Amino acid sequence: MAKKAWGGRFASRTHNVAEKFSESVSFDRRLYKEDIRGSIAHVKMLHKTGIISREDADRITRGLQEIEKEIDRGEFAFSRSCEDIHLNIEKRLIEKTGSSGAMVHTARSRNDQVLTDTRLYLKKETGEIISLVCALARQFVELAAGNLGVIFPLYTHMQRAQPVLLSHHLLAYYEMLKRDLERFSECLIRVDVSPLGSCAGAGTSFPIDRKMTAEELGFRSISKNSIDAVSDRDFCAEFVFCCSVLMMHLSRLSEELVLWSAKEFDFVDLGDGFTTGSSIMPQKKNPDMSELTRGKTARVYGNLSALLVLMKGLPLSYNRDMQEDKEPLFDTVDTVKLCLEVNIAMLKTLEFKEESMKKALRGGFVTATDVADYLARKGVPFRSAHETVGKIVSYAESEGKELADLELSEYRGFSEKIDEDIYQVITFSGSAESRNSLGGTSAANVKKQILAARKFFKNFM
Amino acid sequence: MAKKAWGGRFASRTHNVAEKFSESVSFDRRLYKEDIRGSIAHVKMLHKTGIISREDADRITRGLQEIEKEIDRGEFAFSRSCEDIHLNIEKRLIEKTGSSGAMVHTARSRNDQVLTDTRLYLKKETGEIISLVCALARQFVELAAGNLGVIFPLYTHMQRAQPVLLSHHLLAYYEMLKRDLERFSECLIRVDVSPLGSCAGAGTSFPIDRKMTAEELGFRSISKNSIDAVSDRDFCAEFVFCCSVLMMHLSRLSEELVLWSAKEFDFVDLGDGFTTGSSIMPQKKNPDMSELTRGKTARVYGNLSALLVLMKGLPLSYNRDMQEDKEPLFDTVDTVKLCLEVNIAMLKTLEFKEESMKKALRGGFVTATDVADYLARKGVPFRSAHETVGKIVSYAESEGKELADLELSEYRGFSEKIDEDIYQVITFSGSAESRNSLGGTSAANVKKQILAARKFFKNFM
Amino acid sequence: MAKKAWGGRFASRTHNVAEKFSESVSFDRRLYKEDIRGSIAHVKMLHKTGIISREDADRITRGLQEIEKEIDRGEFAFSRSCEDIHLNIEKRLIEKTGSSGAMVHTARSRNDQVLTDTRLYLKKETGEIISLVCALARQFVELAAGNLGVIFPLYTHMQRAQPVLLSHHLLAYYEMLKRDLERFSECLIRVDVSPLGSCAGAGTSFPIDRKMTAEELGFRSISKNSIDAVSDRDFCAEFVFCCSVLMMHLSRLSEELVLWSAKEFDFVDLGDGFTTGSSIMPQKKNPDMSELTRGKTARVYGNLSALLVLMKGLPLSYNRDMQEDKEPLFDTVDTVKLCLEVNIAMLKTLEFKEESMKKALRGGFVTATDVADYLARKGVPFRSAHETVGKIVSYAESEGKELADLELSEYRGFSEKIDEDIYQVITFSGSAESRNSLGGTSAANVKKQILAARKFFKNFM
Amino acid sequence: MAKKAWGGRFASRTHNVAEKFSESVSFDRRLYKEDIRGSIAHVKMLHKTGIISREDADRITRGLQEIEKEIDRGEFAFSRSCEDIHLNIEKRLIEKTGSSGAMVHTARSRNDQVLTDTRLYLKKETGEIISLVCALARQFVELAAGNLGVIFPLYTHMQRAQPVLLSHHLLAYYEMLKRDLERFSECLIRVDVSPLGSCAGAGTSFPIDRKMTAEELGFRSISKNSIDAVSDRDFCAEFVFCCSVLMMHLSRLSEELVLWSAKEFDFVDLGDGFTTGSSIMPQKKNPDMSELTRGKTARVYGNLSALLVLMKGLPLSYNRDMQEDKEPLFDTVDTVKLCLEVNIAMLKTLEFKEESMKKALRGGFVTATDVADYLARKGVPFRSAHETVGKIVSYAESEGKELADLELSEYRGFSEKIDEDIYQVITFSGSAESRNSLGGTSAANVKKQILAARKFFKNFM
Repeated sequence: MAKKAWGGRFASRTHNVAEKFSESVSFDRRLYKEDIRGSIAHVKMLHKTGIISREDADRITRGLQEIEKEIDRGEFAFSRSCEDIHLNIEKRLIEKTGSSGAMVHTARSRNDQVLTDTRLYLKKETGEIISLVCALARQFVELAAGNLGVIFPLYTHMQRAQPVLLSHHLLAYYEMLKRDLERFSECLIRVDVSPLGSCAGAGTSFPIDRKMTAEELGFRSISKNSIDAVSDRDFCAEFVFCCSVLMMHLSRLSEELVLWSAKEFDFVDLGDGFTTGSSIMPQKKNPDMSELTRGKTARVYGNLSALLVLMKGLPLSYNRDMQEDKEPLFDTVDTVKLCLEVNIAMLKTLEFKEESMKKALRGGFVTATDVADYLARKGVPFRSAHETVGKIVSYAESEGKELADLELSEYRGFSEKIDEDIYQVITFSGSAESRNSLGGTSAANVKKQILAARKFFKNFM
Repeated sequence: MAKKAWGGRFASRTHNVAEKFSESVSFDRRLYKEDIRGSIAHVKMLHKTGIISREDADRITRGLQEIEKEIDRGEFAFSRSCEDIHLNIEKRLIEKTGSSGAMVHTARSRNDQVLTDTRLYLKKETGEIISLVCALARQFVELAAGNLGVIFPLYTHMQRAQPVLLSHHLLAYYEMLKRDLERFSECLIRVDVSPLGSCAGAGTSFPIDRKMTAEELGFRSISKNSIDAVSDRDFCAEFVFCCSVLMMHLSRLSEELVLWSAKEFDFVDLGDGFTTGSSIMPQKKNPDMSELTRGKTARVYGNLSALLVLMKGLPLSYNRDMQEDKEPLFDTVDTVKLCLEVNIAMLKTLEFKEESMKKALRGGFVTATDVADYLARKGVPFRSAHETVGKIVSYAESEGKELADLELSEYRGFSEKIDEDIYQVITFSGSAESRNSLGGTSAANVKKQILAARKFFKNFM
Repeated sequence: MAKKAWGGRFASRTHNVAEKFSESVSFDRRLYKEDIRGSIAHVKMLHKTGIISREDADRITRGLQEIEKEIDRGEFAFSRSCEDIHLNIEKRLIEKTGSSGAMVHTARSRNDQVLTDTRLYLKKETGEIISLVCALARQFVELAAGNLGVIFPLYTHMQRAQPVLLSHHLLAYYEMLKRDLERFSECLIRVDVSPLGSCAGAGTSFPIDRKMTAEELGFRSISKNSIDAVSDRDFCAEFVFCCSVLMMHLSRLSEELVLWSAKEFDFVDLGDGFTTGSSIMPQKKNPDMSELTRGKTARVYGNLSALLVLMKGLPLSYNRDMQEDKEPLFDTVDTVKLCLEVNIAMLKTLEFKEESMKKALRGGFVTATDVADYLARKGVPFRSAHETVGKIVSYAESEGKELADLELSEYRGFSEKIDEDIYQVITFSGSAESRNSLGGTSAANVKKQILAARKFFKNFM
Repeated sequence: MAKKAWGGRFASRTHNVAEKFSESVSFDRRLYKEDIRGSIAHVKMLHKTGIISREDADRITRGLQEIEKEIDRGEFAFSRSCEDIHLNIEKRLIEKTGSSGAMVHTARSRNDQVLTDTRLYLKKETGEIISLVCALARQFVELAAGNLGVIFPLYTHMQRAQPVLLSHHLLAYYEMLKRDLERFSECLIRVDVSPLGSCAGAGTSFPIDRKMTAEELGFRSISKNSIDAVSDRDFCAEFVFCCSVLMMHLSRLSEELVLWSAKEFDFVDLGDGFTTGSSIMPQKKNPDMSELTRGKTARVYGNLSALLVLMKGLPLSYNRDMQEDKEPLFDTVDTVKLCLEVNIAMLKTLEFKEESMKKALRGGFVTATDVADYLARKGVPFRSAHETVGKIVSYAESEGKELADLELSEYRGFSEKIDEDIYQVITFSGSAESRNSLGGTSAANVKKQILAARKFFKNFM
């Protein structure tokens, strides 16, 4: 065990199991670039404000740059007894630069340092996730554009409901992802705040320049209260919440793809590259990517839960519990990015099976609402029209007929108001086309949505 | 059991236990005003667009207004067999107005109706919560302004860390609540969207005017895709997430108030009006409001979890599972409002016990960092200064002395750089005052924060 | 506001909003019978041990019996200012019996009283839930017995895998529910413990007889440590966990019923009594009971989460946060019982559609494993056999053929080891029958499982 | 990318990102010993039942033993393209033993194989956790035995309540941990079930002997239904629930240790080996182990949540989502074991500060209940006695006196029933000693609890 950086007042060393238990370098080493970047900015400022000399600043900066390369090359010996990435790097820095390195922690605490690193990291990752969500959303728009002619049943309660354009359905995912983009963008503003200079939580008596370090590190704004700055993990929870809703959307997509690739629906072919086989059943082609995406949603939810629970009832300011923020955060970032990547890649190979979709329009009386609307337009109060059509459906079902198969005389047995023109109303494409209310499923509407979406992307990025 | 509004095709009635199981009127009756308001707007539009006659529209509107009054007066007979608030009102409307009432559901489905109601409701409640959060945040600012002279220890790891202004600590809560305000305000924009006219999920063939109903109901924007519109519960989850973070903040405050009113701290007196006694122990005065606030955080977290889990893996579009969105939403609204109200009222009576706070500054070597900084300013590299002060603390502890009690000669035994001026550095107020970095705890800083906060409120509302 | 029972040392009254915030009588009144039963047992013991006189004991007992009837009849005026069910009843008792009633709380605290009530309540409810789970499990066994001839595809990854007996599938639910019964039964032992006499947490100096009250109330055992007794809510969490796993099982059943009643599968008819219609689409018959059961799973999970989070990090012994245990507990009890009842009733009317199930065996190459096993039995190493059959499937698919449609010559083009007897191996019933390993799907196995299950029920209750 | 073991029917290879996304070998390699042990037992049975030759069985067994050593020595080249530990080992086995190795998967599927491994693993780990919980529970008993004379205040609502023996408080943790032991032991029975031979979910047509493999692997029982066997993850959820309650208990202990090591309480000294310092504040000695234990509770809760959510609404039988069971399970095992180890080690060094505890008895009127009980024993109805003592406390507080400081005349001003003997009743030790009801805090009781606990351990292990 190495001597601790904070060991001055301690008579005996940290117990071995305590060291193993409390170390974080096994996972927070991921932040080494952010840590070094933060320290270089800090040191530059320490020099500019006259707190340390140019010579010391230069030595520290060079030392940190060398350390970054050592880590890049896998040549850095991480030590558990130095606890975390911060003290691992500081220790090496002192080895390299002696008393200069021993100055790097002037006017700083790990309390603000770890937050600087985490916020820099999360800012970068949020940006990447936004790009991936954007790419996925675009794919839905282009899939919608490329499948404009296809009609299939809208499902409510997993029962066939009404004929809609497949494109309309695909654009629903665009809408969901667009909300995700909004949420991530707003969250990013709350992530993009410099805590550096809050020190242990009370600020410092050194004449530091927080604006300078914030600018140097590209932060959009600066935390206003040092106690809050070191106590706050809201931005972590908010980020993971944004990811949770995104994953919820992906889980809904996944459920649909799992069902649609089941033989019973047979609406899509996911391609060999995104399905896997069975170790025992030679015929299997399983939609594993969608199942895993759905499953990983639970994991991200678990991370959100962990973060919120972690912070419940913690008094101000910093408590060591908060070290537990990192792993759920990192796991969420990794999981979400990988889910987005695999779904983006998979959608590229996805093939819709129009014939099966067409087939699914039959057998569910999906134009029954059109008959009711027809009657309502002819003056039958809607509730009575609905009742009448319910009886027509019941009759047709018992006769083993579709709505289109019923004779006019059979229709008129239920309502005198029904005429020959009913047969136009109940075609699948006629039904879909007629729903041209704002946001409805008619082709003209869907095309408008596609144009609006393309415009959105042009402005967004 | 009444005949169902949708019963046309059904041969037999809903089973009694199924009816009990699936009804929602026992809790969604809370939405009756929104439901009636939505229907009146819908009917006005149906008439303006020529779908129904002025006469029918007038009859329906009058009928709905009467029904609202019946419910207001507690004279409405809610029926479980009519399932939900929507069909309860429609049935009564038809009783009152006959075929006119039977037209109210033209170009509408419960799928868009329930969302219209829920969004109207949540918009109103979010507004109220924003006002309450604002009021609470203001209180922290004014408490900070009113207690400017008080110094007490900042705690990290529940150990005394450094002297800070109590006001600085109070303003940390202002910062947290300000972020809550931002999140609620952004969420509100996503709540404030009219789904009306999306019907069952495909739109409608009636020539409706969605802009008109949206305006009539005061919605800021209109949903763009009818399938998404009826499938989306993101806004519920987001609202409950905002509430979860708010409750997390309140739970942290509560933890502090529970501790601070413990005899061991004795930092606050909560007042008889907000404490309760024991049924057996005559001396007890318990901080129940804070304990309950902390406890209710778990409940709101549970609601968030329920909503996210509910939606995981649900295929589009509407599924009946979604009916389960209401109770967690309503419970969250009620819980959060009551928590805010009780904390606002309690803070008004809160008294800080300055003497106890002052006492707590002693015995924790809270100015040790000041000594290290002092040495660093005299050229000792910070890490070495830290080491030296660690030893000084260890020595002082073994001697049973405070830092201020050590003789200069004792100090100089550890470092020759220490001079007589050390005694000014280690006073509690001197220490706090010296931390004048941006966001730090010095009085000047804290006053600036107070002014900025007051300005924020002026602009916010 | 009434004077508080604990108000001796308080100068001013509870603030109105605090009273509203902290009251529990609006929901814990549900425990009135348990509360009264507990008090009667307590008073009987107080008399037997000579702590109070027979006369006082009799007066109290009669008073409590009258109060129970008042509440039964809805004539009891619950008062929020008396906080909870315990103090509401005590206050009324004192009104009725004067100084006798004022003795009822001797050697007792609300801390042990509320736990006595809750444990009595939960013991009763757990018993009822066990009966309902038992009834549901039985139904699966009898459904299995009544559908012995039916074969359909086992699904893995929602893809058709292998032919199995429907009965075998139904018995999988029996196995799940049997584990639930075990868990509830074990949990019940930890619920069934008398805390009465632990008082505020330190016990009492009165010569009480805890064994007597425990026996009187029918408790199986007695808590051993008074501090633990009032601090413990493990049994609540454990009960809700047992419910969560049960609900998880019901959610899986629900998912299957939703899919099976979709037109694409069409495996079951749920009956008009357990489906509902649409307000707009006249043809709809939706599996709402299953959707709601699935949805309510999220709610019970949320309750589990709330209870665990509630207790995290609470110091011993009683903290007011714990009052928040009741609502998630009550809601879980209500939800789970109703879910069980509706599913039990629904399964009674369920009809399996054998023809659709038979149809589903085709088109998924569900006997491909049988061909691989056939080759393995002829000496081809299994991994190579699997590879060969993979190619056969691929070929058959491209030819648009089923395995049964391939000519022997086509088979032999892939492996010389295949002979005429392959055609017996790949019949659906032949395949299912051949899987006669312990726990496998052959009819003989399934019959054995049914007999074992029936024996289990005979012994269980 | 390697050719897949199941690749026969696939025309193109798995997409690179899909492979990365769906692999599990990066984490399930942890199960290699269980996997090999399971395969050796399987192969032994395949030979005994005549399914494969002795020669093949021997070759496979030797091959597997070699592979185990390769992995032990870190010489095994894990390949992501072989997906999981099972196929990695099988591929290497085939490399080593050719057609013999290609037989190992006869009459087996990964569906039953992965569960065999997981159950073997969890059985072992549950056993280890039980030992650790036992060790921790023992420590509380011995700490109780070693501190028998110490009295300190019981806290309710974090307010001083009544004098209790520290030992009594420590034994409350013994009681909690004892319940944990019960739950883990019962869970273990449901873990300890052999699924091997369930194959893909339908069983197999090979004449396997499941009893033999179960015995060979030391399983206590055998799964009864092959579909349930491969669909079931209840045992994972149950295990993580048991861990969650255990962690909840540890979090409560941690909260107490954090508070008790705060200067304000100063009840314990945790020792240098289990505290850490600050990077900036030289005086700090922080109770990090307790804070981290408290924090890690959130993580285990998150894992429980993830597992339950994962399984919600999944249709039978195996779905790939279930692969997501492993990481939360492994993380829970690691976290819980480490938490137990660190707390066991830390408690060994813990020192109680009797003086501070004694001091804390003063100033909270902790014997007020004794005065009320005294009055009740003298015939004052308890509720009136409580009221009277409330006034005495209020008076004493305003006079700045303890109960022991009040003159008899002052007492008698409140009640004539109070005599000189009151002063014996209100000593701290007298108060504690008087609470000798079953489970109460008197020394005699506590000693009985210690003896009972020691007996429990003798029988348990």
